Amino acid sequence: MQQSSAILPFETRGRALHDITREIAVWQRDTGIREGLLTLLCRHTSASLLIQENAAPEVHLDIAAWFERLAPEGPGYAHDDEGPDDMPAHLRAILTGVSLQIPVIDGRLALGTWQGIYLAEHRRRPHRREIAVHLIGA
Amino acid sequence: MQQSSAILPFETRGRALHDITREIAVWQRDTGIREGLLTLLCRHTSASLLIQENAAPEVHLDIAAWFERLAPEGPGYAHDDEGPDDMPAHLRAILTGVSLQIPVIDGRLALGTWQGIYLAEHRRRPHRREIAVHLIGA
Amino acid sequence: MQQSSAILPFETRGRALHDITREIAVWQRDTGIREGLLTLLCRHTSASLLIQENAAPEVHLDIAAWFERLAPEGPGYAHDDEGPDDMPAHLRAILTGVSLQIPVIDGRLALGTWQGIYLAEHRRRPHRREIAVHLIGA
Repeated sequence: MQQSSAILPFETRGRALHDITREIAVWQRDTGIREGLLTLLCRHTSASLLIQENAAPEVHLDIAAWFERLAPEGPGYAHDDEGPDDMPAHLRAILTGVSLQIPVIDGRLALGTWQGIYLAEHRRRPHRREIAVHLIGA
Repeated sequence: MQQSSAILPFETRGRALHDITREIAVWQRDTGIREGLLTLLCRHTSASLLIQENAAPEVHLDIAAWFERLAPEGPGYAHDDEGPDDMPAHLRAILTGVSLQIPVIDGRLALGTWQGIYLAEHRRRPHRREIAVHLIGA
Repeated sequence: MQQSSAILPFETRGRALHDITREIAVWQRDTGIREGLLTLLCRHTSASLLIQENAAPEVHLDIAAWFERLAPEGPGYAHDDEGPDDMPAHLRAILTGVSLQIPVIDGRLALGTWQGIYLAEHRRRPHRREIAVHLIGA
């Protein structure tokens, strides 16, 4: 049994779902661990992680509209020092969560066919984001 | 230290919370691992996993109504190729998340007395769903 | 490779986000495990766990208002045996989730600078809550 961990940097292009499946799969393969548990932690409070549909681009439009409906930009937040997109970003990060776990089976992430791993940037501007990754197994 | 993993199939009866606590506990006991960490990953984007109240049936009615309020069926979604229940299903899967982790202590899942593990089917029709399970420990 | 687990009790002061980062970090250090994966499970259905902003107190006010907007108290729930704050508490626990995972790197929780671990008490009255903690690593 062995483990591996790292802090991986990602440059986001502003508010969007960024597909990071490939980068994570490459990191997993490079560890040489073929059976185990992969954990990702987004080290931020205005960006987050989710697993969702990787095929139909319209799904991402609907997700963006839904985020805006459930945690809209606008006045009425007590916390607005960093701009109108800051507090909605915190709320959207709570909505999706910041950590994900994926079993690794037969050398591959055990995701379903239509599942991709997304780093959700909730701020308007591009940001450098860090994801802590950990893999334990054999 | 050892680990075990599998892909477990479940047949859902359409939109509902399906209690899978017993099946998961049986799988855990069969591994022989009595101290460790159990991970579940729902390999779909329109079904998901949650831990909730296992006693009062009215709670499940209220959860269903809440899902409908926060991610309603209806027009207004860009993605509707697979029917009006598809996009709300994706959104509800984001709301609850698709992975769960439960410590195993003294040979048992360390759930609280009133906690059950539910596979939430968000599509109207019955589906065959797969859950990747992983247990590491001793 | 080794592991450690425990059930940690916390006394909440009623509905609020309770910062438990310090208690969790102390428990992790006491295990002597410096590289690994930490898991927390809140063993309740009306309290939950989240990772969020630990600096600006206004953020917590806005989170409380958002919980009230998305899962309001009031009539209209089928389940109200335990009072008007019970069913909203279940829904808010679904919204944030009850389990969290944090890699441990170089002897420390790999949280970001502004991230704290919060036990979210969703009932109005103080409660004794239990969190199952598990750490595997070396």
